[in-house]
Amino acid sequence: MTRLVDDLDQRLARERRELAVKQRDAASPYFRGDRRRFVQSLAAMGGVAALARTAAAQTPLGATVHDVPPDASKTPGYPLADESYGTRSQFETEVRRRFKTATPLSSWTMTPLEAGMGIVTPSGLHFERSHGGTAVIDPTKHSLYVHGMVDEPRKYSMKDLRRFPSISRIMFVECSGNGLTEWSKPTMRTVQFTHGLTSTSEWTGVPLSTILNESGLAHGAKWLLAEGGDAAAMTRSIPIDKAMKDCFLAYGQNGEAIRPEQGYPLRLMVPGCEGNINIKWLRRLEVSDEPFMTREETSKYTDLLPDGKAVQFSLVMEAKSVITSPSGEMLLDGPGFYEITGLAWSGRGAVRRVDVSTDGGRTWRRAALQSPVLPVSHTRFRFPWTWDGNETILQSRCVDETGYVQPTLGQLIAVRGLNGPLGSIYHLNAIQSWHVARDGKVTNVHHY
Amino acid sequence: MTRLVDDLDQRLARERRELAVKQRDAASPYFRGDRRRFVQSLAAMGGVAALARTAAAQTPLGATVHDVPPDASKTPGYPLADESYGTRSQFETEVRRRFKTATPLSSWTMTPLEAGMGIVTPSGLHFERSHGGTAVIDPTKHSLYVHGMVDEPRKYSMKDLRRFPSISRIMFVECSGNGLTEWSKPTMRTVQFTHGLTSTSEWTGVPLSTILNESGLAHGAKWLLAEGGDAAAMTRSIPIDKAMKDCFLAYGQNGEAIRPEQGYPLRLMVPGCEGNINIKWLRRLEVSDEPFMTREETSKYTDLLPDGKAVQFSLVMEAKSVITSPSGEMLLDGPGFYEITGLAWSGRGAVRRVDVSTDGGRTWRRAALQSPVLPVSHTRFRFPWTWDGNETILQSRCVDETGYVQPTLGQLIAVRGLNGPLGSIYHLNAIQSWHVARDGKVTNVHHY
Repeated sequence: MTRLVDDLDQRLARERRELAVKQRDAASPYFRGDRRRFVQSLAAMGGVAALARTAAAQTPLGATVHDVPPDASKTPGYPLADESYGTRSQFETEVRRRFKTATPLSSWTMTPLEAGMGIVTPSGLHFERSHGGTAVIDPTKHSLYVHGMVDEPRKYSMKDLRRFPSISRIMFVECSGNGLTEWSKPTMRTVQFTHGLTSTSEWTGVPLSTILNESGLAHGAKWLLAEGGDAAAMTRSIPIDKAMKDCFLAYGQNGEAIRPEQGYPLRLMVPGCEGNINIKWLRRLEVSDEPFMTREETSKYTDLLPDGKAVQFSLVMEAKSVITSPSGEMLLDGPGFYEITGLAWSGRGAVRRVDVSTDGGRTWRRAALQSPVLPVSHTRFRFPWTWDGNETILQSRCVDETGYVQPTLGQLIAVRGLNGPLGSIYHLNAIQSWHVARDGKVTNVHHY
Repeated sequence: MTRLVDDLDQRLARERRELAVKQRDAASPYFRGDRRRFVQSLAAMGGVAALARTAAAQTPLGATVHDVPPDASKTPGYPLADESYGTRSQFETEVRRRFKTATPLSSWTMTPLEAGMGIVTPSGLHFERSHGGTAVIDPTKHSLYVHGMVDEPRKYSMKDLRRFPSISRIMFVECSGNGLTEWSKPTMRTVQFTHGLTSTSEWTGVPLSTILNESGLAHGAKWLLAEGGDAAAMTRSIPIDKAMKDCFLAYGQNGEAIRPEQGYPLRLMVPGCEGNINIKWLRRLEVSDEPFMTREETSKYTDLLPDGKAVQFSLVMEAKSVITSPSGEMLLDGPGFYEITGLAWSGRGAVRRVDVSTDGGRTWRRAALQSPVLPVSHTRFRFPWTWDGNETILQSRCVDETGYVQPTLGQLIAVRGLNGPLGSIYHLNAIQSWHVARDGKVTNVHHY
């Protein structure tokens, strides 16, 4: 090993000498160099066309493709473009994957949680759910209307909204259908498909209370209808207390405009509540004294109980967690050390604790929580584990700041039942079990 | 206004009736529909080719281009792709802009801070600085060598590094040359060019102490050389105490692999220290008992003082802040309310306070800090301001957790001087002044 490194030293010393020359030639003054040298250096690497190619050639997976030199330290890299919006490496291939519904116009795609790091979800991999495709809206032509039981109806352009005081919040959005295939039996193979309908971004926008106060709530105002400007005209009713408490109208996501599939140019954020009520492409707010009983809160997004009654407006996403690595379809590379890591979150506030079991729930030990631990945000947990090579089951259990403990699947089904042709659908927040076989193969199982 | 909204109500009611039909047709079962319907629905929107186009057609500015319907609520949006990595809206045009150095192979591009929101910088807009272009490295072929004054030299593949326990940290990276054009006179017009060499991401990787402990530091080890695998073979010396304290080897940025221009596949993170020492494309670590005196810490990245002596290894980025809106080249739309907002940060820890002056520094009032306020991270501040229409100067002043107060330009020059042909170069952290004219035009000025 020492010899190998010594050889390396000599090679690197040689390279540094060669590169010193290159560097002198490429040395950059701190102010504009003369046009001639600039053009020469461009010519030296293929001219302006090269710059254009650099910017234009992109894969469907969001990467700009460049030639791969045998040794990057012996070949100049690609030049910095005069204007650019960077892409990820051409070697990276994670993608959102679509659940094959009958039509891609009403469908969802899921975040590859197994590849995630930290708590922020890359905007390009944030899960999608839309009922009429992704709306394409020119922000300069978009308006938000506020009317109904208000003292003064109002209309806002995006420019108007951006003039108001703003807030930013790092928070998760989770579709209440996250895990809908997993009630009766373990159906999906990867954590992307069992849990990938949740993502975390830093959202920026205007407090909804600011906008509602501008119009003034009439006496008796109790509910708010939010309507999207997409082809589904998605509509949901929100209790006015929640609307005034901490909802906001987001135009920003992870430091730039919100992404088209997240409701560009305007989305209603309802912290801690099911994704569906975070209305995208928001165009209208109507205040009323009662809920509007839209399709999305009657035939859909309700929870059918064992006694045949259905719970409506079960909006809050309860505490939940999942181990993202090791997870379904991964293959452990033999006995030894592994860092177990995953995500925990709660619609009711901050995660207080995450416990991990490496023996199918017989014993639990506390995982480390990565700071910052923020309310209503994904929280990254980590747990050191040395695998002895025997078959076992890995689980995680979230406890939130209210003391609520993430239930086992058995405990959840005892309360919710398994109703309807598909079993239950929404708000599955049970503990996830990953089976580790002796050959290291990890699979999705139910373990009571 | 009421009439306008009533008309709107009727129109929307009509649309909802029409859309109810569309929705019924597009209604999605929760499990795979029959192939026939799926193909029909695809055909209805132009077939598989449409999906392909959706994924492939991208602008150089990182957006996928779609047709813009006159009314998005009357036309189905574009379908969700089976596999995707989302792009920003085609209506968004913010870009990193390059400072026109003599060659784009040794150059830098700057983050459009004026368009930023919250604290996270979109990865595609994170500033770039490279001395030999952006290296293209296949992560499966990349290695990190650790040698020198260690008990056992080691070599790691990326796969090896990912097996170690990891950490994540939301932190800024700032080039010590940020603002280099602004020492002697206000040169640049926008905050992108005066302050755009700083960005914040959530970074994930392995603590450097873990790797150094694996090799074991020999007695007398005091410095660490970090070397990049790019064509510049960028090298910097780091005090071993700092290396063991909180440095880490990052392979993740904002929830995915670090971007090529940030050092893919591996970057050394040195929290709070000048960007240049956060070595990108990291390939080698050499432990020694003295600094290596590389080009980047002798002829460059040193601070020349009035007495002719130069300070070396002035690594920490001191407390700094800047108002990003209103900022240079913006035009205020007449007297009235404006939210003043900007960023503050310190290499020594958390921001304790940000003061804002709207009268050229005569009076200062405390700005609101957006949570989370994290150490060594951009912190968003906001300050409500009603402009009376008179000419004035806007400034912000950061105080960090050590009590250090961001200096005025006069105070800084009194200590640092204005040396060399270009005046001083590095570590300009003075208070920025924005002049507001009676016509609302905002310009970059020096104000002592």
